[in-house]
Amino acid sequence: MKERVLTGDRITGKLHLGHYVGSLKNRVELQQRYESFIMLADVQALTTHFDQPQLIKDNLRKVALDYLAVGIDPDQSTLFVQSMIPEIAELTVYFSMFVTVNSLRHNPTIKTEAKERGYKEMYYGFLGYPVSQSADIAFCKATLIPVGEDQIPHIEQTRKIVRRFNDLYAPVLVEPRALVGERLEGLDGNSKMSKSMGNAIYLDSSPGEVEEKIKKAKTDPSRIHKHDPGHPDICPIYGYHCAFRPESKQDIYEQCSRGRIGCADCKKLATGAMNELLEPIRERRRQYEGQPKRIDELLVSGTDKARAIAKETMLEVREAMSIRYFD
Amino acid sequence: MKERVLTGDRITGKLHLGHYVGSLKNRVELQQRYESFIMLADVQALTTHFDQPQLIKDNLRKVALDYLAVGIDPDQSTLFVQSMIPEIAELTVYFSMFVTVNSLRHNPTIKTEAKERGYKEMYYGFLGYPVSQSADIAFCKATLIPVGEDQIPHIEQTRKIVRRFNDLYAPVLVEPRALVGERLEGLDGNSKMSKSMGNAIYLDSSPGEVEEKIKKAKTDPSRIHKHDPGHPDICPIYGYHCAFRPESKQDIYEQCSRGRIGCADCKKLATGAMNELLEPIRERRRQYEGQPKRIDELLVSGTDKARAIAKETMLEVREAMSIRYFD
Ligand code: SF4
Ligand code: SF4
Repeated sequence: MKERVLTGDRITGKLHLGHYVGSLKNRVELQQRYESFIMLADVQALTTHFDQPQLIKDNLRKVALDYLAVGIDPDQSTLFVQSMIPEIAELTVYFSMFVTVNSLRHNPTIKTEAKERGYKEMYYGFLGYPVSQSADIAFCKATLIPVGEDQIPHIEQTRKIVRRFNDLYAPVLVEPRALVGERLEGLDGNSKMSKSMGNAIYLDSSPGEVEEKIKKAKTDPSRIHKHDPGHPDICPIYGYHCAFRPESKQDIYEQCSRGRIGCADCKKLATGAMNELLEPIRERRRQYEGQPKRIDELLVSGTDKARAIAKETMLEVREAMSIRYFD
Repeated sequence: MKERVLTGDRITGKLHLGHYVGSLKNRVELQQRYESFIMLADVQALTTHFDQPQLIKDNLRKVALDYLAVGIDPDQSTLFVQSMIPEIAELTVYFSMFVTVNSLRHNPTIKTEAKERGYKEMYYGFLGYPVSQSADIAFCKATLIPVGEDQIPHIEQTRKIVRRFNDLYAPVLVEPRALVGERLEGLDGNSKMSKSMGNAIYLDSSPGEVEEKIKKAKTDPSRIHKHDPGHPDICPIYGYHCAFRPESKQDIYEQCSRGRIGCADCKKLATGAMNELLEPIRERRRQYEGQPKRIDELLVSGTDKARAIAKETMLEVREAMSIRYFD
């Protein structure tokens, strides 16, 4: 039996190159070797966007299109909608019983949120984010989770929760491990590309949009003239070379450090590599864009497949917890 | 359309006279006039007994038998098992998104628990007890909830959560109101009869067991001789007179206060009234006891009926939240 891979994204907006480098690339590679599930995490999106449900609805099909465009093959990967798997909610409730508030407070995401608004003003569902994330993973017994490095503590917490469940009841759930992707810098030099920071290049960008954004991107501010020695380590463009034309990263590093390349030329090379990567993605997007019905069908049939697995797991969970009362 | 009544009990042990006076009596009376649902709350029981699931399984059918014995008529009331309604877990998750930790901390049950073990050591699911209780009530749009007075704050919190949902999305859920029953004193003089305090008379007690327990029950300790004036207000036996032979409570009050009745005689009268109440309950218990299959069938068909309502409500909830993506 093939190992099972699970990933997904919170459906709060379309996807960008940071997602690509951090996880999508791994997913496309893994789908051939593993049984691959990709969750459109609308319930997780509600955790922070409960007052903008329309936004989630609007983005659901956009994100599905992003997946197909980057090369997620619906014959190899199963796309499904989180809110249509009630078993995830059930597992969340069962896990809640034995996870202490304290252990949730140790989670970095929760800690950050607590610093901003305090524990008391936090929403109960937000505090329980690590619990519901564990349920997302546990319901299908996924073993391999391609994530960005900021997600490592979540996977660790999932392992703990699964272990605790198996100890308390019976060993029916599976501890997953993380497959950590690369991190991509934002256009503003921030260490992470992210929608909320407005420093992202989206997967649906046209060649011209990529060019424009890269032109405006931050570089080493100490470089005023072409021959000033630069510091590629603090420049996002260098990060893009590393991610998208790794074969030349050494070369760029040296040319920049020694003041042998101008930022405009350096950016052009990066832009070229990014557009080269995006070209087949644009092509696949065009194909699927004309078939909205096909996307809906894929989501419905994928969700059916995930649901069947969820039902099986829940039978085992109920049996283990002695709450399967009738045959 | 008839108004809908919902109640239930945490399945942690068999029921006692405190349950009878506080809620069961009201349920039996209401079932003729209202559409009546009674939930065997096994998930709520897990909140505190997650490490003893076998205890819940063992008590499920015992509590069902208690219901039928007190006169819950399966043709008028629908008995159902909480864990078999996944929609309750789904609603719990959705409600969690917009309920703050702070508002949960104002709940008296949570406050009491926090005093004992602190917020940090509290289990996440326990902290969310008021949220899941709201989901229990909301899923079937119950309007009338027969509860003990300690449950009033929970119903108030449910009203708030339902109001918030309706404001955020669309007015599809219904605010319930409480129908508050009486409180029954414990055998030890504690103000509340409760299993955990070991001061209860169970509904399945034999006449001799009732007699024995009442004999050992606390009375006014200042009464040493029959003619000492007593203080019925601090005596649980007087409470039992009030509950089970209310027509004579005035009389007992005066006789006790004036030292005109001995405690032994007073207890005999209370015992008589309690056994009189319990006699038809014993009789019905004997009838159902021989038909364990019938009880299982009632639970399964009742749960099917509740589930159908839950599914309908969830369609409306999904529509309201804009997360009903496909037809
Ligand atoms: S030459 Fe390239 S790497 Fe160096 S600062 Fe300019 S854009 Fe950045
Ligand atoms: S006479 Fe009755 S009410 Fe008075 S103290 Fe004795 S048992 Fe209690």
